[in-house]
Amino acid sequence: MAIYIALMHYPVYDRQERVTAAALTPIDIHDVARLARTYGLKGFYVVSPLRSQQILARRLIDHWVTGRGAVYNPLRKEALSLVRIADSLEAVLTAIEQEEGCNAKTVATTARHYAQARSYGEMNKLLRTGGDAPYLILVGTGWGLTREVTEEADYLLEPIEGKGYNHLSVRTAAAIILDRLLGGDAR
Amino acid sequence: MAIYIALMHYPVYDRQERVTAAALTPIDIHDVARLARTYGLKGFYVVSPLRSQQILARRLIDHWVTGRGAVYNPLRKEALSLVRIADSLEAVLTAIEQEEGCNAKTVATTARHYAQARSYGEMNKLLRTGGDAPYLILVGTGWGLTREVTEEADYLLEPIEGKGYNHLSVRTAAAIILDRLLGGDAR
Repeated sequence: MAIYIALMHYPVYDRQERVTAAALTPIDIHDVARLARTYGLKGFYVVSPLRSQQILARRLIDHWVTGRGAVYNPLRKEALSLVRIADSLEAVLTAIEQEEGCNAKTVATTARHYAQARSYGEMNKLLRTGGDAPYLILVGTGWGLTREVTEEADYLLEPIEGKGYNHLSVRTAAAIILDRLLGGDAR
Repeated sequence: MAIYIALMHYPVYDRQERVTAAALTPIDIHDVARLARTYGLKGFYVVSPLRSQQILARRLIDHWVTGRGAVYNPLRKEALSLVRIADSLEAVLTAIEQEEGCNAKTVATTARHYAQARSYGEMNKLLRTGGDAPYLILVGTGWGLTREVTEEADYLLEPIEGKGYNHLSVRTAAAIILDRLLGGDAR
C-alpha cells in the first residue's frame, strides 16, 4: 500500500483564523522527510502556492540531494529524496493518480474537535483492510488545515489528546500520527 | 507517578563519536516543552555544562514565561514553565530526589542497538506497575547519549525501528517515545 504525506502551507488558518499561506519552516521539511523515510512512505509533498517558498524548498532539497549536503550526510539525502513540491492539494492528488493509477484517499489531521473524526484504532483497521488504494495524510502548518479541507477529506483523524493541552508543533504531531498509524505493535 | 524528561547536551557523541557538549537548538526546547505539557510530565530538564548555553536557554525561557512572549502566547508559557536548566545528569537526579523524596529511575533512549534494551511494551508495563518511584527519561542530542550514560541507566529502551532507517531528529524521536510510553490506547 502506498502512503504519502502532504505538509500543507495553504489553505491553513493564521492566529486570527483567517485563511493564509504560511511561510515554510526548513526544519519541518527535514523532520518530516526523515519521518517519511522511517515509516516507509512513498512520497512527501510540500504544498505551497507561493513561488518564493517553492524556490526556498527547492534550494534546500537540492543542497541535500544533489549538492554538497549529499556528500556531507548521505542519510539526509536518502530522506530528502522523498520530497516533492506542489502548488495545491489538487496538484498532489493529480500527481499521485498519475503515479498510482487510481485516486488517493485523503486523511486529514487536526487539533480541533469534529464530530466525524475517527479514532486511530479505526483508521489503523482501515489502512490494514482498505485494499490497494493509495492514502494521502494531510498535516497543516500555521494554525491548522481549514475547515473546508478537513471536511472534504475522505477521513478525518481525531486530535492527539494530551492532558488538556493540544498544542504540539507540526513536526512532533506528524511524528506521533505516523507512529500511531504505521509504527506497528511497538506500544 | 511523576515522570520527568532530560534533554542531554552532555555527555553525547559528535559525528566522529567523540564525547562532546552539543550546542542548544532552541526549537528543541519549545518542542519538548510542548510534549512534556501534552503528556503530563512534571518537569523538563535542559542539561548542559556550558555557561553560554545555559544563558541562552534562560533567555529563551524567560521571554516566554515572564517576558513579552507570555502575553503573546500564554499556551507557550504553559509549556515552557516546565523547563529547568541543569549542569549535569547528577544535578538533575539530586533535584528530583529533593522534590520527590526518593531517587528517580532513569530510562535511557538510543538509536543504537544494545543487548539489554527493553521493548516499549515491557517498559509500559513497568511504568504501570512500578510503584511510586519517579522516572527520568533521557534523550540525547548530537549523535546520541554516550555508552556510559546508556549502560548506567536503570532501563534502556530499544531504538525506534523504521523501515531500515533510524535517523530521526531528537524532537520527533522524543514525541514518538513519549506517545508510546504515555499516549494510552490511542494506537
